[in-house]
Amino acid sequence: MTVIKRGTARTESGKADDRLGPYKAERISDTGDLSQFGAFIETLPPGSASSFNHWHEAVDEMILVLSGTVTLVEDGIETVLEPGDAATWAAGVPIGHNLRNDSDSDARYLVIGTRAPSDRVTYPTRNRVLIFDRTTDDRRYETLDGRPSTKPG
Amino acid sequence: MTVIKRGTARTESGKADDRLGPYKAERISDTGDLSQFGAFIETLPPGSASSFNHWHEAVDEMILVLSGTVTLVEDGIETVLEPGDAATWAAGVPIGHNLRNDSDSDARYLVIGTRAPSDRVTYPTRNRVLIFDRTTDDRRYETLDGRPSTKPG
Repeated sequence: MTVIKRGTARTESGKADDRLGPYKAERISDTGDLSQFGAFIETLPPGSASSFNHWHEAVDEMILVLSGTVTLVEDGIETVLEPGDAATWAAGVPIGHNLRNDSDSDARYLVIGTRAPSDRVTYPTRNRVLIFDRTTDDRRYETLDGRPSTKPG
Repeated sequence: MTVIKRGTARTESGKADDRLGPYKAERISDTGDLSQFGAFIETLPPGSASSFNHWHEAVDEMILVLSGTVTLVEDGIETVLEPGDAATWAAGVPIGHNLRNDSDSDARYLVIGTRAPSDRVTYPTRNRVLIFDRTTDDRRYETLDGRPSTKPG
């Protein structure tokens, strides 16, 4: 059965990091046994951020806002996104981005990203690059100038 | 700029085939210069179908209903999908599927599919398999039992 009725996808919630605040993710593509891309509906409460500012070397990303409003931050430029608005980030384009909920109600948006076998994720504001291999689950960090780091930053 | 405000994506419309009826597609991922997956919002008017019943050998597919209702047909089993409902089809799973609007108002849903370098698309009810190569744009048809065909069926 491939149908996932609203509210029945496997869900994760919590805080990825105290600095980001809480979130909820309805993992639609995982629930539906897809492997080539990830697609989840994120609910971001007021005050939370989706992630630290980052860009992917190997992964195309996209969001589509479903309800509420969310602030897109791209290298310091802020754009308020409303329901029906989308944003895309092509693999390898070095524009750091993240989302922040500056409103007083929840924002919900669909996030899509390919499942590249390996990737380098650059966090410009944290002086870190995450290098990971999906096949081995190996993860390591470097600073922006290429020195190994044991901490995510 | 990666932001695509509602209603500003490149749009195509028409009829893919007289038997399917008209459609409109807002090509979000193409407008945003993504290449690893396609993502578009399809508006399907009453009486139209999204495609002929089919399944992909190499492509993960997913839809998320945004507004209206649409009937999912999977090997003869019909399921009405409402806003917030999703459906997924993993590459290589031989379950023919398509969508039909049996309601009296437009249905809108996001469609996502990976851009595999090559694919075989099986149309069980048309006795055809489309074999195509995205790198060369080569397309040819076979019948279900492997005989070459010059017609799509």
